[in-house]
Amino acid sequence: MQITILGGGGFLGQKLARRLAQDGAVGGRRITGLTLFDLHAPPVPMAPFPVKALGGDVADPADMAIAIPRGTDAVVHLAAVVSAQAEADFDLGLRVNVHGTLAVLAACRALRKPPRVVFTSSVASFDGGQEARLDDDARQLPGNSYGAEKAIGELLLQDASRRGFLDAVNIRLPTVIIRPGRPNKAASSFVSAILREPLLGLETTLPVPEEFAVWICSPRRAIDWFLHALAMDTAPLGLDRGVNPPGRSATVGKMLSALETVAGPAARALVKHAPDPAIEAIVGDWPASFTAARARNLLGFSEQESLEEIVQGFIEDDLAATRAERGI
Amino acid sequence: MQITILGGGGFLGQKLARRLAQDGAVGGRRITGLTLFDLHAPPVPMAPFPVKALGGDVADPADMAIAIPRGTDAVVHLAAVVSAQAEADFDLGLRVNVHGTLAVLAACRALRKPPRVVFTSSVASFDGGQEARLDDDARQLPGNSYGAEKAIGELLLQDASRRGFLDAVNIRLPTVIIRPGRPNKAASSFVSAILREPLLGLETTLPVPEEFAVWICSPRRAIDWFLHALAMDTAPLGLDRGVNPPGRSATVGKMLSALETVAGPAARALVKHAPDPAIEAIVGDWPASFTAARARNLLGFSEQESLEEIVQGFIEDDLAATRAERGI
Repeated sequence: MQITILGGGGFLGQKLARRLAQDGAVGGRRITGLTLFDLHAPPVPMAPFPVKALGGDVADPADMAIAIPRGTDAVVHLAAVVSAQAEADFDLGLRVNVHGTLAVLAACRALRKPPRVVFTSSVASFDGGQEARLDDDARQLPGNSYGAEKAIGELLLQDASRRGFLDAVNIRLPTVIIRPGRPNKAASSFVSAILREPLLGLETTLPVPEEFAVWICSPRRAIDWFLHALAMDTAPLGLDRGVNPPGRSATVGKMLSALETVAGPAARALVKHAPDPAIEAIVGDWPASFTAARARNLLGFSEQESLEEIVQGFIEDDLAATRAERGI
Repeated sequence: MQITILGGGGFLGQKLARRLAQDGAVGGRRITGLTLFDLHAPPVPMAPFPVKALGGDVADPADMAIAIPRGTDAVVHLAAVVSAQAEADFDLGLRVNVHGTLAVLAACRALRKPPRVVFTSSVASFDGGQEARLDDDARQLPGNSYGAEKAIGELLLQDASRRGFLDAVNIRLPTVIIRPGRPNKAASSFVSAILREPLLGLETTLPVPEEFAVWICSPRRAIDWFLHALAMDTAPLGLDRGVNPPGRSATVGKMLSALETVAGPAARALVKHAPDPAIEAIVGDWPASFTAARARNLLGFSEQESLEEIVQGFIEDDLAATRAERGI
């Protein structure tokens, strides 16, 4: 099985690459090669198969033809400009998030055999806000450019799947916590920061009230979902390639309680309230909960673990590397 | 008021141009100039204001910058590759229906004042089929490339409206009957043909059963909706720029009865049953009915007239021209 990860230098791309290298197989199929593509050639893990690292532009069809060469069986398309950045720079978001996915589609269509495409869409493609608990057939009415661009990507890949150009699973990722490294340009960056920064012994700010609920998943869960989507039978999806995976709806207050349970009250005390209407305007529109019935009952996506396990998982998987990266 | 009609050479574009020329104003605002744009420079009506005809490529940003010059107050974007053609030629559909709308967006964004954009989306962007009666918040899960491309256009223009680049009204047009001229490449072409061809004294075929229901509107109604959308207050639309206008759900049998009422049993006898699974596969997926509650109760879109009035309207407006065009 020949796999390409677009956005392979990102935090989830690197985690997936390391997991593939460790497992050597996906769904019982041996991996024969892996290509990691990002703006700059990404770090390559030790693996029992050849790994190629490429740097380029996801919106350039020539670069995509190289990143997705003949023989590619699966593409994991994680390359994106994130929410606050797509809001700040419309042209960049459109280029990477829309023209990028168009270039991915063209490269996949040029293959002899339609590849599996695992595409990360987002909770940000929906509206509804704090009161929402969305069913699987909920309409996507995005209140931000990132969400609109992700919904467009879904439509492109859904139609391309129907036509047999490729075989897509569009996973609407919840807000992934706890992101390692530094705060990023996602509007939801704070949801990770309020847990990560205290674990590093650093103060951080909370831009929303503690009652504010977020639809979340852990990096471990996201990687498990990608592996499942790479190997699953897509026939039960039918026309509808969109999957709302079984994340977890949690208030910021519950997250901070989990932090306190795992790391003590001193950690929690490092989180200071500092309301930010710009951030709340973006994330406040995203739905706080989904039924995720199809993913759970029909498609076999695994359940999200507890908040305490998420905090513990970060300590085990990412705390040391984050300390090293940031010189703490 | 300076107006551009993209797809101004098409059947609805020409009707709208003649109506604007006749009225000289929209919503009480005097028209100061009209630009008609299509693949080839369209025919120009006699008008009390300057009318410019341009030929070009809607997907070419340079052509769009000329078609939508500084000072443009409103753009009616009707330019599209229709359903069966977009299904037969994926690249052409993507170019005109997606890259075209991207170029329209870019040209509108370059203006000093965000223009009103009236965009024709389609019932084909929905699924649900014969049993469906869709609410205004129904999800668009298109089963054809044309519908996917229209849904993508809506997302682009909805987000551009939210950002203040333009001010869009995305009208999901029902199947418009009775189209004048010749059969076209829309999968729904037969819905007009079963009424038009007998009125011309010609035999035609019906590819679906008489119980088959279609969500329809007349050309007169479509033009009225465009005029309303050009002048309406868009504030009540909020984030949601999609409008399901109040068309009419009618079975093919009822349409043929209306034909018989207006033109006699000899006309109806010219329609021969000839099942076509390819056509039924496309149109059979489109919903047969909408509640259209928002358009009716909140937005002031006018109601569809009766089937008999639709047949009579074609005779009054288009029969002579269609005879002349086809040399009948």
